[in-house]
Amino acid sequence: MDGFWNRFTALVRETVIPYQWEALNDRIPDAEPSYAIRNFRIAAGREEGKYGGMVFQDSDVAKWLEAVGYSLANHPDPILERIADELIELISEAQHTNGYLNTYYTIKEPGNQWTNLYEAHELYCAGHMIEAAVAYFTATGKRKVLDVACKLADYISTVFGGEPGKLRGYDGHQEIELALVKLFKTTGEQRYLKLAQFFINERGTTPNYLIEECKQRDGYSIWADKKIKLPTVEQLSYNQAHKPVREQEVAVGHSVRAVYMYTAMADLAHLTNDQGLLEASRRLWENMTKKQMYITGGIGSTHHGEAFSFDYDLPNDTVYAETCASIGLIFFARRMLELEVKSEYADVLERALYNNVIGSMSQDGKHYFYVNPLEVWPEASEKNPGRRHVKAVRQKWFGCSCCPPNVARLLSSLNEYIYTASTKDNAIYTHLFIGSEAQFKLAAGQVAMKQESRLPWEGYVKLELAAVTGAPFTLAVRIPSWCYGKAVMKINGAESSYEVTNGYATVNRLWNKGDIVEWEPALEAQWIAAHPQIRANAGKAAIERGPFIYCLEETDNGGSLSSISVIREANLQSHFDNELLGGAILVEAKGRLDDQTSWQADTPYRPLTQSRSAEPVIIKAVPYYLWGNRTPGEMSVWIRTCHE
Amino acid sequence: MDGFWNRFTALVRETVIPYQWEALNDRIPDAEPSYAIRNFRIAAGREEGKYGGMVFQDSDVAKWLEAVGYSLANHPDPILERIADELIELISEAQHTNGYLNTYYTIKEPGNQWTNLYEAHELYCAGHMIEAAVAYFTATGKRKVLDVACKLADYISTVFGGEPGKLRGYDGHQEIELALVKLFKTTGEQRYLKLAQFFINERGTTPNYLIEECKQRDGYSIWADKKIKLPTVEQLSYNQAHKPVREQEVAVGHSVRAVYMYTAMADLAHLTNDQGLLEASRRLWENMTKKQMYITGGIGSTHHGEAFSFDYDLPNDTVYAETCASIGLIFFARRMLELEVKSEYADVLERALYNNVIGSMSQDGKHYFYVNPLEVWPEASEKNPGRRHVKAVRQKWFGCSCCPPNVARLLSSLNEYIYTASTKDNAIYTHLFIGSEAQFKLAAGQVAMKQESRLPWEGYVKLELAAVTGAPFTLAVRIPSWCYGKAVMKINGAESSYEVTNGYATVNRLWNKGDIVEWEPALEAQWIAAHPQIRANAGKAAIERGPFIYCLEETDNGGSLSSISVIREANLQSHFDNELLGGAILVEAKGRLDDQTSWQADTPYRPLTQSRSAEPVIIKAVPYYLWGNRTPGEMSVWIRTCHE
Repeated sequence: MDGFWNRFTALVRETVIPYQWEALNDRIPDAEPSYAIRNFRIAAGREEGKYGGMVFQDSDVAKWLEAVGYSLANHPDPILERIADELIELISEAQHTNGYLNTYYTIKEPGNQWTNLYEAHELYCAGHMIEAAVAYFTATGKRKVLDVACKLADYISTVFGGEPGKLRGYDGHQEIELALVKLFKTTGEQRYLKLAQFFINERGTTPNYLIEECKQRDGYSIWADKKIKLPTVEQLSYNQAHKPVREQEVAVGHSVRAVYMYTAMADLAHLTNDQGLLEASRRLWENMTKKQMYITGGIGSTHHGEAFSFDYDLPNDTVYAETCASIGLIFFARRMLELEVKSEYADVLERALYNNVIGSMSQDGKHYFYVNPLEVWPEASEKNPGRRHVKAVRQKWFGCSCCPPNVARLLSSLNEYIYTASTKDNAIYTHLFIGSEAQFKLAAGQVAMKQESRLPWEGYVKLELAAVTGAPFTLAVRIPSWCYGKAVMKINGAESSYEVTNGYATVNRLWNKGDIVEWEPALEAQWIAAHPQIRANAGKAAIERGPFIYCLEETDNGGSLSSISVIREANLQSHFDNELLGGAILVEAKGRLDDQTSWQADTPYRPLTQSRSAEPVIIKAVPYYLWGNRTPGEMSVWIRTCHE
Repeated sequence: MDGFWNRFTALVRETVIPYQWEALNDRIPDAEPSYAIRNFRIAAGREEGKYGGMVFQDSDVAKWLEAVGYSLANHPDPILERIADELIELISEAQHTNGYLNTYYTIKEPGNQWTNLYEAHELYCAGHMIEAAVAYFTATGKRKVLDVACKLADYISTVFGGEPGKLRGYDGHQEIELALVKLFKTTGEQRYLKLAQFFINERGTTPNYLIEECKQRDGYSIWADKKIKLPTVEQLSYNQAHKPVREQEVAVGHSVRAVYMYTAMADLAHLTNDQGLLEASRRLWENMTKKQMYITGGIGSTHHGEAFSFDYDLPNDTVYAETCASIGLIFFARRMLELEVKSEYADVLERALYNNVIGSMSQDGKHYFYVNPLEVWPEASEKNPGRRHVKAVRQKWFGCSCCPPNVARLLSSLNEYIYTASTKDNAIYTHLFIGSEAQFKLAAGQVAMKQESRLPWEGYVKLELAAVTGAPFTLAVRIPSWCYGKAVMKINGAESSYEVTNGYATVNRLWNKGDIVEWEPALEAQWIAAHPQIRANAGKAAIERGPFIYCLEETDNGGSLSSISVIREANLQSHFDNELLGGAILVEAKGRLDDQTSWQADTPYRPLTQSRSAEPVIIKAVPYYLWGNRTPGEMSVWIRTCHE
């Protein structure tokens, strides 16, 4: 359906999903074993053995199943469906008769359920199982896994809640909240929405549940496997449980936890018309995307706690920018678009998707980055312990392998991110420019639309109305941030004016079947500067071309990328290179290479005047998402600038 | 005696030594307690109690006593001497009858002596006690503490050695090796030299003693207080025990351990004419000072293991550059000068002394940096865990307080670093330009020389021969690296030519009493560039003026120092500012401040073309050693450059 994305969806379907199934079954040679399926087999009583992997290993299985659900919805595959059905059978065998489902506690700590919400990810794993169930049920209509999920959620609601005798707790890792919203939407059962509200409302209240719970188990920590000091309220900012969610001002703590929570907050703000949650969602969005986000859509600038640090602290080299965090950011952006259609949400969504997220996966679909740096010096990744988390090449699989299945489930559900149909506005919004066919239900009736897109390489989109209602409605097309307001609309071949509303070009009229809207946002390579408070990028610029951020790689530009500067006044030249990893547009620019030859190895420092002038070079930049797919070497997104 | 250094030596004598005595006695309010003296009181049986502080806490007492020794040598002080004598009495009471001396093992693990050389610093503490004894004996002629040291060393030589029944071990933290050399020089007893040789020769041989020892104690670790995995040979590079010292190619591991070891290696190369050690010393010097040293003379670029990382990896913000490491570098440089007089050794010595070392202490002598950064963003030091080790203000005292007493002992023994008298060369070498009076013994007889110096602010030195021999000899004066070969010599008022030998200006003649040599090395502010492989400094320059490196502080230049660039072609203006912390020369230069005003807080990224031109500013730089003594704020040594 889409020239660019077909490759990815096919890759996910044909390679990623089968490969990850092998990984979950510990059948990838030389990769860290997952143990995830084996844990279910042991919990189901089919096999003897010890629990293996992380405490939250179940969630990898769930995310995989969720991805399978999305994939089957677009692309039926009986063999894959049979594997999934067998997995669902296994999962259901691992579920307790009361509905409880978690292989870690079943195998390793029976009897200790719900005693360590702070660390043990029990509700987190339940949330992923619920998401998987919703996706699989929606795709196949088969209720079995949905029944497992409902039984699990129903059991959870007997344990947690505000009523006397229930636990007033919530998970150390948010996830179940957004999953329960999905379960509510799928089943129509209000009790799931209420349980999600309960978890969100309870979080961070005083006395702090997670601290009290630590006291109850006498400070025992799963991770340390011994008694540890009780966390302080301040330390619970890691879990965004340091204060009630409505009072949180800035994005703090573990970034994946944060965005999963914000997603649920926006969901609940929308579905329950909760003004406090709406304001908090907007505030946290604002802080996170305007002061704590990398230009690639990465979030979380420190590997200590995989966390946010503070406003404008966005180091390129010691960065974290976890893949899962950008995926969560996309979830959050999607929910904000549900709340209020503003193009900035879709701009960020697109930025994270086209850069941080797809850049995390290798072109072969079998290698992944967990950390997505904006600057790599391979020797430093190897020899400087403070940069060891930054890998210079993608890895096969991780002991903590949250990211790869997260990529799979996102890429196989991309069609959920392209449009919004609003009966309230009587409008169809196009957020993303991805070739697709879609049906919408407006108040006046059904609309069918077909999108053809030359994105991401060219600024041309064609929307064709395959079916229309008899009444007028609004077509709204996002004016992407990267066209800087320069965008032409044609209706049936004639240039047309449009209203600009919240960053969307809108036309309200009576549409006819066969009407064609052409949308041409200016798509040109640009030098981008960073806010001066982002100290890491002072004096530097990055290349943006449409949704893509570009980078320099050693393989194209030689080593020591830091010796390169680019001339601010010079034009950027774009051209398509068929040879480059399946074809991509390169950007070239005039630059200078600092004098290297006059330096002796034994002179670390010398007067500036002794250097020869920098020599002219042409720098060659490739889209960030393609980096690291050729000869390993240095990479840099931000490049020093100089004047002509 | 010297306008610049008098302040420091007086500060050490009047403030640092008394203050540190209070600290060692746990009498500084709000500072972390030391427990060091209390440990001796308990070990001596004067008091009941538990051991407190680090396993190597004894060494803080020893370093303090060593500083007292040097101070008394230059500046008799009966009250201080009485305190020291009482301390020596206490130390001797803590010594076992067999000579053993270590309060940790005496109090906390009696019976486990010598079972954990890898971690427990037993020989390290012994080494510091020996150094203290030598200094105190040399200053006062009192043998008591020297007897303690000899008894301790003699006992150690019954435990360690190549003979059957002795341990073939060596300390996890080198120090005793250089101390034993001092003890040999003071007592003339060859056995101490031999023991130093033994420790150096054994280190890193196969089978690895430290690993075998870990096996013996079943993997028990003092630091973890439990059994841990055995270290690998590779991990022992932290202790420079991964291979025999003569085979070591590059500076690796914990930087203080490294330079203490290199110091002993150079000592032994000199005293035993050991060619293998000479070559290794030169090789390690070369690698460390030419590829792994900051422009401030700091070494060790990562706080993980307080260690070297690899060639050209010299980040300014996540830097370590521990004070003690630069002090050790000074020791090593001094020993290399004994081996062979080459000005590069004295250049590095001077660089470390005038920048990293004196910059570590506050102007009031009561606050210290352990880590000496080249770039500080106070908010990052507080909120980014990867930069938390970089303090934006000096601290009162540390739980691990190795650095403050190390500064004290170095600054109170500065006179040992100024000259070398070589009977072999029949020459007197002046390495440092510090006002002083000195006596030298050449083959032909005694020489007395008086140095007056206008350094570090002005390039003018006067050497007056107060007494001469009847025979010709060579006066050699270092041509400092920072004058770039521009230096004028006058003899008795008339400009004189000189030979250049190994970076020294040398004149051989028959000198007369009262002869005056004036030495005028060009001392001008310069922009300095870093080797292009030092990626952290690409496109940047630092200011050097004589021995000083300069830096920008927020208090003089406003916040966001990263927004400042300087114009490469513009001249640097120097002027003395009486108001600046007791008087210092400031350097000013034309620069530009990036557009800040056109940026909105909600715009993290935007096209480069939207920025207004940078506005002209005058930047104001202060000597690095003075930073952090006024309003806390940002600091930066390296500054972006631009063209006019």
